[in-house]
Amino acid sequence: MPTVSSNSYGKSRIRLVKVVRRGDRHDLKDLTVNVRLEGEFDSAFVEGDNRLLLPTDTLKNTVYVMARSRPFDEIEEFGLALCRYFLAEHRQLSRARIEVHQRLWNRVPVGAKLQGHAFSSAPEGRTAVITSNGERVAVVAGLENLPVLKTSGATFEGFLRDTLTTLRPDRERILSTTLSARWTYLKPEVTFGSYWQGVRQALLETFVQHESRSLHHTLFAMADVVLSSYEEIGEVTISLPSSHHQLADLSPFGLENPDEIFVATDEPYALIEATVTRD
Amino acid sequence: MPTVSSNSYGKSRIRLVKVVRRGDRHDLKDLTVNVRLEGEFDSAFVEGDNRLLLPTDTLKNTVYVMARSRPFDEIEEFGLALCRYFLAEHRQLSRARIEVHQRLWNRVPVGAKLQGHAFSSAPEGRTAVITSNGERVAVVAGLENLPVLKTSGATFEGFLRDTLTTLRPDRERILSTTLSARWTYLKPEVTFGSYWQGVRQALLETFVQHESRSLHHTLFAMADVVLSSYEEIGEVTISLPSSHHQLADLSPFGLENPDEIFVATDEPYALIEATVTRD
Amino acid sequence: MPTVSSNSYGKSRIRLVKVVRRGDRHDLKDLTVNVRLEGEFDSAFVEGDNRLLLPTDTLKNTVYVMARSRPFDEIEEFGLALCRYFLAEHRQLSRARIEVHQRLWNRVPVGAKLQGHAFSSAPEGRTAVITSNGERVAVVAGLENLPVLKTSGATFEGFLRDTLTTLRPDRERILSTTLSARWTYLKPEVTFGSYWQGVRQALLETFVQHESRSLHHTLFAMADVVLSSYEEIGEVTISLPSSHHQLADLSPFGLENPDEIFVATDEPYALIEATVTRD
Amino acid sequence: MPTVSSNSYGKSRIRLVKVVRRGDRHDLKDLTVNVRLEGEFDSAFVEGDNRLLLPTDTLKNTVYVMARSRPFDEIEEFGLALCRYFLAEHRQLSRARIEVHQRLWNRVPVGAKLQGHAFSSAPEGRTAVITSNGERVAVVAGLENLPVLKTSGATFEGFLRDTLTTLRPDRERILSTTLSARWTYLKPEVTFGSYWQGVRQALLETFVQHESRSLHHTLFAMADVVLSSYEEIGEVTISLPSSHHQLADLSPFGLENPDEIFVATDEPYALIEATVTRD
Repeated sequence: MPTVSSNSYGKSRIRLVKVVRRGDRHDLKDLTVNVRLEGEFDSAFVEGDNRLLLPTDTLKNTVYVMARSRPFDEIEEFGLALCRYFLAEHRQLSRARIEVHQRLWNRVPVGAKLQGHAFSSAPEGRTAVITSNGERVAVVAGLENLPVLKTSGATFEGFLRDTLTTLRPDRERILSTTLSARWTYLKPEVTFGSYWQGVRQALLETFVQHESRSLHHTLFAMADVVLSSYEEIGEVTISLPSSHHQLADLSPFGLENPDEIFVATDEPYALIEATVTRD
Repeated sequence: MPTVSSNSYGKSRIRLVKVVRRGDRHDLKDLTVNVRLEGEFDSAFVEGDNRLLLPTDTLKNTVYVMARSRPFDEIEEFGLALCRYFLAEHRQLSRARIEVHQRLWNRVPVGAKLQGHAFSSAPEGRTAVITSNGERVAVVAGLENLPVLKTSGATFEGFLRDTLTTLRPDRERILSTTLSARWTYLKPEVTFGSYWQGVRQALLETFVQHESRSLHHTLFAMADVVLSSYEEIGEVTISLPSSHHQLADLSPFGLENPDEIFVATDEPYALIEATVTRD
Repeated sequence: MPTVSSNSYGKSRIRLVKVVRRGDRHDLKDLTVNVRLEGEFDSAFVEGDNRLLLPTDTLKNTVYVMARSRPFDEIEEFGLALCRYFLAEHRQLSRARIEVHQRLWNRVPVGAKLQGHAFSSAPEGRTAVITSNGERVAVVAGLENLPVLKTSGATFEGFLRDTLTTLRPDRERILSTTLSARWTYLKPEVTFGSYWQGVRQALLETFVQHESRSLHHTLFAMADVVLSSYEEIGEVTISLPSSHHQLADLSPFGLENPDEIFVATDEPYALIEATVTRD
Repeated sequence: MPTVSSNSYGKSRIRLVKVVRRGDRHDLKDLTVNVRLEGEFDSAFVEGDNRLLLPTDTLKNTVYVMARSRPFDEIEEFGLALCRYFLAEHRQLSRARIEVHQRLWNRVPVGAKLQGHAFSSAPEGRTAVITSNGERVAVVAGLENLPVLKTSGATFEGFLRDTLTTLRPDRERILSTTLSARWTYLKPEVTFGSYWQGVRQALLETFVQHESRSLHHTLFAMADVVLSSYEEIGEVTISLPSSHHQLADLSPFGLENPDEIFVATDEPYALIEATVTRD
């Protein structure tokens, strides 16, 4: 008889919007929550015995009920509360994983004044992934899908060449990526909101100011600044997909093209990912 | 023998990035261009005679060559130049239509200083559609896909009820939409960049400040402000798709939910579109 | 005061699945419906007077109620019934437009036997657009997003060359497109299901068998066969987006590439669209 | 100084189409390849020293060159060849991972005859992931995104209820999922093509014929059949995302709805994943 060597189940894309009204100033949280549960469900798999199986519909209910009954300010806190709840209520579970994606809405300015009730959305998202086995809890915060581009301060030279290498060294390349990062807090007790803002700013400023010799080089510099600035963070994982801007070849038409007109492409794209850990 | 009663052909999604370097300050244009041509191509259709057919590959070449050889500041100017070029060079054409989608990149601030060479992208896009038959030229500028949301200042009451109506009047609804608009200039000669910024701000501020009785009501108010503010604009078309934020029903769990926890949905969604014209 | 020169509103992406069980054989319809209504809604736009405005939520209810209360076999019939209903019940409307997208599910074979209750989905979709102003009704059926590709039987030669043309004639090109077509019935009374199957087969077989000199040429041949075969069809509109398969340049590596290895690209792509009408 | 605890880089979405012509019968392979490499790249990360870094552009070149110079029939063979090549040529690498997604094109029938040169695409894809550290090689084949639905033969009853459970038992539910699976060969030497066809058919037939008490139950049954039928397969991982078809509530309109009219939704959705291993 085959064995279930790993399993998880849950509900994905539970969409929750929370509005807190303090007079004319409203706070808006726009979340998409994924709940994943693990446990000993052999009888469900093998025999179709559902007696230990909590319906995924109940997971959805739980997210909405918890959002109402336990006030939270930051998505990490919400994830922690959900994790604790599932593991406390349901002893058949060995592990819970709560993933929260927050769509970020900024207040709209009218004249110089930020409005209390009106928002437009930012391109990037904020994430939190909370996992627990009942004893240990991991809090991983993240930034996802922030499109950034620099037109200076990036080279790619001196690389390895083999017989199939045709790329020419580039002394001034357009570096374009959609930045995603996640980082692990050593203890689940920091002021999550201000840390997130700080890490986002550190990542972005380092991308901008670093004299890049490669995506590897930039990635490490970004991670290094985060770990240097925030000792409560134990490791950082950064993902840099990067599509190429290719100089348009206008020579058939008798035109020079001194780094001005580029063909943007989406595929293929380079992808570099690394985890950098505090020693 | 059947007749070709209408036809067009062209190249879509020509992706062009233009970088202009003025010392440390770089300007970035990130464009996707669609070229559509119309003309008398009966022999190509019926007989497979290609002698009047300019390859779509050439349309692509033309976009890159024109971007290099004719400097432009605004996408409307680029579209106008392309339209003129195709109609002047190719007498078999009866009409040219150039559609430009501009991805907007904002300079990244480091400290208080905006960087000259580093950008992050905005969620919304800017568009221009230029059409010409050789005699008359239409310039339609646009804003696309700006996500906005307000948590106050919107009601929906007093509407028509038939036997299938179950919706209840709403005195405080979340109004959420992804704003797209396009507007026609009476003459193709305005300062396109500053007009675009002004119209964008007018649309956004009106969405925020208008006391909305319906999406129809808001749409008209937005169009009205644009036409009142800019007499060079002849008409405005606005599209407001709006998905519903539904109050989560927590009564099965003994909880009240005073306009706080909502279920966001993407479908179905309401869609209202109208063109408002200067008298 | 500006004028509302055109307007429409409605509900989009109403998702409806209908299951009819005849013993062990079940029939499945998987539909996405868009309802668009037009009328004289000046008071709603200008004054926020909602008294003539039927909520879009009611449009959604109507779709589900009609699906239950009026049996239908084909999506054209369903669209016709919805059109009639809205225009009969609501005199403030000047025009109704019902758009139905049907996801196609094929019965799964087990052994040689098609199952009565199990389905896998086809890539392409079937569409119907019904419009009516109360007096005249137009029934437009369609096929959308059928990916097809041929590796022989297509050339592109003898085309127009201008100073920016670099494309070389191609005597054997890969023709790859995602076929979409729609056609108008002269009377809204045919056996829609069998016509749809026939037109689909005619379009596909013509694409395959036609000796193509260009996309224009193929498009016309496809439309011509449909109009010749079905005299109840008055016109056909076909859309052929076509992305390029570019021969990989392996010469830097000392390799020939005799029409074997291609780089597929999604953008830019050629797009040709035409409407062919019965004389 | 922080440490790079894990890293990978490579090129993603390399799009390759291979056409082999044997007289009138052409074979078509439509592949998207992702190359991921791991190794000791500390100097690249920390110091920006690129001397061991093979450009991702070269990875792309390699894919096209290998496709031309080493004939292959199945994607697993192609992945194996690429893995071997990278590890043999580049000693700085500790691990290579080649992921191939194959878009499946079926021959089009004209009359009763399958055409040799014309194809339409299937909805599902075929995948292969080959990983190697130079000593051990893992070959994981897969099926991705096959939409299937059954209207009978599935219940969900007798499940666990807690205080937040409102779901009612269902004795006849619509089971709808987009099936993805991957399986590991114990030795990388089977006839990959016929195994893939066999596993696909086993998964599909089991989904159809199994009397399902839950998604867990169905998933295990599917894995069990694969492991029983193919002793060269060591484990199977199956992923079953399942969105809900909710019976439309027509009671406000005085209508019954005996399992006929459903509202389809895409989110939230249930997701169950498990790996089943041969004992």
